[in-house]
Amino acid sequence: MKLYDCATAPSPRRVRIFLAEKNIAIETIQVDLRNGEQFTPAFRAVNPDCTVPVLELDDGTRITDAIGICIYFEAMQPDPPLMGGDAKSKALIAAAQRRAERDGFYAVMEALRNFTPGLKGHAVPGPDAYEQIPELAARGRARVQRFFERMDAELADRAFVCGERFSIADITTLVSIDFAKWIKLPMPESCMHLRRWHELVSSRPGAKA
Amino acid sequence: MKLYDCATAPSPRRVRIFLAEKNIAIETIQVDLRNGEQFTPAFRAVNPDCTVPVLELDDGTRITDAIGICIYFEAMQPDPPLMGGDAKSKALIAAAQRRAERDGFYAVMEALRNFTPGLKGHAVPGPDAYEQIPELAARGRARVQRFFERMDAELADRAFVCGERFSIADITTLVSIDFAKWIKLPMPESCMHLRRWHELVSSRPGAKA
Repeated sequence: MKLYDCATAPSPRRVRIFLAEKNIAIETIQVDLRNGEQFTPAFRAVNPDCTVPVLELDDGTRITDAIGICIYFEAMQPDPPLMGGDAKSKALIAAAQRRAERDGFYAVMEALRNFTPGLKGHAVPGPDAYEQIPELAARGRARVQRFFERMDAELADRAFVCGERFSIADITTLVSIDFAKWIKLPMPESCMHLRRWHELVSSRPGAKA
Repeated sequence: MKLYDCATAPSPRRVRIFLAEKNIAIETIQVDLRNGEQFTPAFRAVNPDCTVPVLELDDGTRITDAIGICIYFEAMQPDPPLMGGDAKSKALIAAAQRRAERDGFYAVMEALRNFTPGLKGHAVPGPDAYEQIPELAARGRARVQRFFERMDAELADRAFVCGERFSIADITTLVSIDFAKWIKLPMPESCMHLRRWHELVSSRPGAKA
């Protein structure tokens, strides 16, 4: 089993933190996204979507999605649970993870990809060329600001993003906030609860992954 | 238990088909999205994100996300499985579902919300006002076309979107294709495999949900 990874990229970092929290070590293969290795014929043969992470199982099966990969490891090694225990907690954690992804992670990506000169023609991840839309970069930044404010309000009386323990919803939120540094959007000073939570989860050993 | 629903809307249709496939009947409350009921104080108290579907459990817990709701019912009534059996199939189906959602469902939504006059100021679902970006509507349409082509190629030698049996990945793909009628983008005549698959899955009793 091996993980196609890029040590500097936020999307595979979600998987790296997930694995670190479960204390699972696997072989990784670094894909040089900065120099366009994801668009080479060799990597297209691994994942035609030209994205990482990709988990390759020993039977050759490839899982080409960060959350799909987390679901695989949660099923193979349930302890510690990062995606909930009973039906209700599974549902609530999935919903919280998806909301952080949509309002946080994708909003940062929208802002970054529609603005950065080096990503011209790559405004959407994947093999197809889409031009940048400057108004969309601005909208992405506005959405990230709202994400900070809302998460701050929600974390006022909570230790973690969803429920009583650390979960994949915390991982997506943490990675989104750190990803926002790429677009020079730090958490506002006024977001005290969010900053407290960020310091706490960043101190976990897995956060270094 | 009750489901906040809107019979004409594609997002809650994903849950309705999922429930029909599992032969689960539950009470529904219709939310009149066309007349803005999702923005009323009464509905904001149910879901501050101003979206449906919302599943309300008997203990008052609310699950405010279509996939989160499906995860709840999959755990409560695993048969027939719509989200996979073993770790590998769970991971592959989740990845396929997410790809159909990203490249199909969200691309249609992007095209619709950034174009339709009645959605001015509502270019992003939820309570916050975001103006329409016409270039994004055009990008959305281009992405839907690519989605049709790619799904057609993949369905050339497959009965279902992921694996040997009907799954939630088929549900998201079906709902996305039917949603594309709202932006007047039918499947191209040339997409024979996709059209065959669409006819097959549309004939299932659950597809009427």
